[in-house]
Amino acid sequence: MEAWKDYQEQHKERFLDELLQLLRIPSVSARGEHKQDMIACAEAVKAHLLKAGCAKAELFETPGHPIVYGEIITDPALPTVLVYGHYDVQPPDPLELWHSGPFEPVIKDGKIYARGACDDKGQFFMHVKALEVMKAAGQLTTNIKFLIEGEEEVGSPNLADFVKNNKALLKADVILISDTAMISLDAPSMDIGVRGLSYIEVEVTGPNRDLHSGVYGGAVANPITILAKMIASLHDEHNHIVIPGFYDDVVEATPEERKLMAEAPYDEHEFKADLGIAEVWGEKGYTTNERTGIRPTLELNGIWGGYTGEGAKTVLPSKAFAKISCRLVPNQDSHKITDLLINHLKKIAPPYIQLKAELHHGGEPYMTPIDSKGYQAAAKAIETTFGKQPIPVRGGGSIPICALFEQELGIKIVFMGFGLDSDNLHSPNEKFDVANYYKGIETIPYFHQYFAEG
Amino acid sequence: MEAWKDYQEQHKERFLDELLQLLRIPSVSARGEHKQDMIACAEAVKAHLLKAGCAKAELFETPGHPIVYGEIITDPALPTVLVYGHYDVQPPDPLELWHSGPFEPVIKDGKIYARGACDDKGQFFMHVKALEVMKAAGQLTTNIKFLIEGEEEVGSPNLADFVKNNKALLKADVILISDTAMISLDAPSMDIGVRGLSYIEVEVTGPNRDLHSGVYGGAVANPITILAKMIASLHDEHNHIVIPGFYDDVVEATPEERKLMAEAPYDEHEFKADLGIAEVWGEKGYTTNERTGIRPTLELNGIWGGYTGEGAKTVLPSKAFAKISCRLVPNQDSHKITDLLINHLKKIAPPYIQLKAELHHGGEPYMTPIDSKGYQAAAKAIETTFGKQPIPVRGGGSIPICALFEQELGIKIVFMGFGLDSDNLHSPNEKFDVANYYKGIETIPYFHQYFAEG
Repeated sequence: MEAWKDYQEQHKERFLDELLQLLRIPSVSARGEHKQDMIACAEAVKAHLLKAGCAKAELFETPGHPIVYGEIITDPALPTVLVYGHYDVQPPDPLELWHSGPFEPVIKDGKIYARGACDDKGQFFMHVKALEVMKAAGQLTTNIKFLIEGEEEVGSPNLADFVKNNKALLKADVILISDTAMISLDAPSMDIGVRGLSYIEVEVTGPNRDLHSGVYGGAVANPITILAKMIASLHDEHNHIVIPGFYDDVVEATPEERKLMAEAPYDEHEFKADLGIAEVWGEKGYTTNERTGIRPTLELNGIWGGYTGEGAKTVLPSKAFAKISCRLVPNQDSHKITDLLINHLKKIAPPYIQLKAELHHGGEPYMTPIDSKGYQAAAKAIETTFGKQPIPVRGGGSIPICALFEQELGIKIVFMGFGLDSDNLHSPNEKFDVANYYKGIETIPYFHQYFAEG
Repeated sequence: MEAWKDYQEQHKERFLDELLQLLRIPSVSARGEHKQDMIACAEAVKAHLLKAGCAKAELFETPGHPIVYGEIITDPALPTVLVYGHYDVQPPDPLELWHSGPFEPVIKDGKIYARGACDDKGQFFMHVKALEVMKAAGQLTTNIKFLIEGEEEVGSPNLADFVKNNKALLKADVILISDTAMISLDAPSMDIGVRGLSYIEVEVTGPNRDLHSGVYGGAVANPITILAKMIASLHDEHNHIVIPGFYDDVVEATPEERKLMAEAPYDEHEFKADLGIAEVWGEKGYTTNERTGIRPTLELNGIWGGYTGEGAKTVLPSKAFAKISCRLVPNQDSHKITDLLINHLKKIAPPYIQLKAELHHGGEPYMTPIDSKGYQAAAKAIETTFGKQPIPVRGGGSIPICALFEQELGIKIVFMGFGLDSDNLHSPNEKFDVANYYKGIETIPYFHQYFAEG
């Protein structure tokens, strides 16, 4: 057991350097201009897999960005762990709010600042380095497969087909994912579920061209005003979503689960101070942790229309746009919710505008059973290195492919995340604590050991 | 009388070429990067004034863009006409909707397409060419002063001081402005008023940084949602503005005026077809012409927040912004309305966001008396060249400086516009009909003649 710790200690500087190198590649999957960067990043991941000890690694082309697959089969009789992660990152905008370049990683106060530091380059790379450590120490207790995709941040549009067409290749006993957060190093936690997602874009067209707001204002519907009215109508005064049928399939959390959630560390004063807000907001009758964990939501991710530049332009614009996404909880179906949302918007669209509403992407919610072999192995691994049993929590984020994994491969997923909620995922100044990175690399080998023993 | 027509006919190609040259200068006053273009444009205007026959012309520096002044005093005993116009233009965005470059003027189907073609380069330049025509024909019947500013599209922030400090220089008997539209060449009309303006920008701040919409969504107020709710609440179900006190000072149009307005040519079917809308929109109880003429309005000119790029980004943004402007009718005061608007927004801002609301610029409404000597001279000039008496209409646009002109200089303003409402002012593909341009140059000398005779 100690052998792998020694190896990690001896090579920790290099383990950090290698992550920084990976973070320098601007692998923004949403942007066409980064197509070459995506390929470069996939190639770098493949090279790292081989270097760390995979017997083979390759790129699989897709209609979008390539999927990286690698494996080391120590002994077919051993259990197999499939590690899933993604090498693509969110767009770095708004750039002006970053303290350092999003693709020029810096370490400051023990934190790695870069787009993808935590989500998910830093987190999947812990598994690559854990493999190197285990292999070097001669302590490989499982077969390991890696599935590192490049389209998670755009809804994994091509992963489902890949999984369906490569079931034998991906055959495993458990799927291990580090793409979620824990409460803190002092209060380790493990996600027992992720929310589903339904992400749409809306275009409201008023007049067929931008108009002078003096000459036409007051007599022609302004698409911004109409879009605002439509958005405003989606939540009632209790911040309950008013789309008919939206909550129909929600499985309410049991009083026991809500009681357990209430015991998880949460300080509203700290929460507000960290975000700089005077008041929290959300659905009446639920706590902050419940609002992000067990309840579905509807959020505006973007809005634009008319003149947005410097100074004043007196225009009545032709068009206004919004990006809207819902987070879904177990038993909600993303296709059904997308249809409900789009149909509701069409229904409330007034006759003096034209509405276009289209799906960007979606994904189903997923819950992992606490009594599964994988969860138990991960919980024990965390207890070993953190000295504390992890608190099971429901994560607010989404990993759209989870439900499909279980459906197609027939195996359970374990979320063993080492990030923090405060890591600024999807925001400027994304970070990952160096201590968490090393702690992950230290903890992962125990998971493999306990899972093999279990 | 015929002499000036001959001269115009002989030089019409050049008159067009000179306008096109002026239109090639991207004199966008709202954008700092066009500072040098603004100076170049002012210099070009000055050169044209001298070339057309002004005895002197000069640039006056301001804290913003320069003011161009020129004059020809034929005989101090003659009446003096002060021509006001502006050489600055609106920003050309959205660029992708232009069929040709906004600063690469083209003539197509008898129309000049370019930013500023009508508003206001094409229109003030008619007066420059009319001067050349009158001078060449030896038929100058008035003294003429030109005040061509470079900040009309940003609310004329420096013109008031200039006017106050140069009352003697600007002394005149009437102010003549071509910066409005007529119904058509077949139905000539003259504006008898312009609306006032109150233009503000609003910034809503939720959390102190962009957040992951999964991790925080549902538990933290989304500034886009809150801004949408605030915007949505500004008009009631009858599209009446709900800001307390907003309509208090509005002088209702008399039944006679409304009757007269109802007689002006207006075809709702054509109006809707031209704009590509299925239904008109507006304040209940008023017609389209009344909504843009005698009623104040509140329009959204721009909105932005969150992720507005390609693809999907699951962000709960820190900030959302809007540009909002009100058009005001006689007796409303723009300072008072701005205060009402900003205070109302502050009052309805919920505690979980921070609101910043600031004035961009404003201007007072203005009405010109039909029985004034200037209006009568302009109406007679139009009747002479169009063969029809102009229909008096209330214009929907704003020329913020009008009220100040009358207050400081003690003289009346005449709006003699030759543009059309369909000229796409402030929109992509702004145009000015060549026929209207020539008709303006033909009509203006009659104004001077009749005003001098009057």
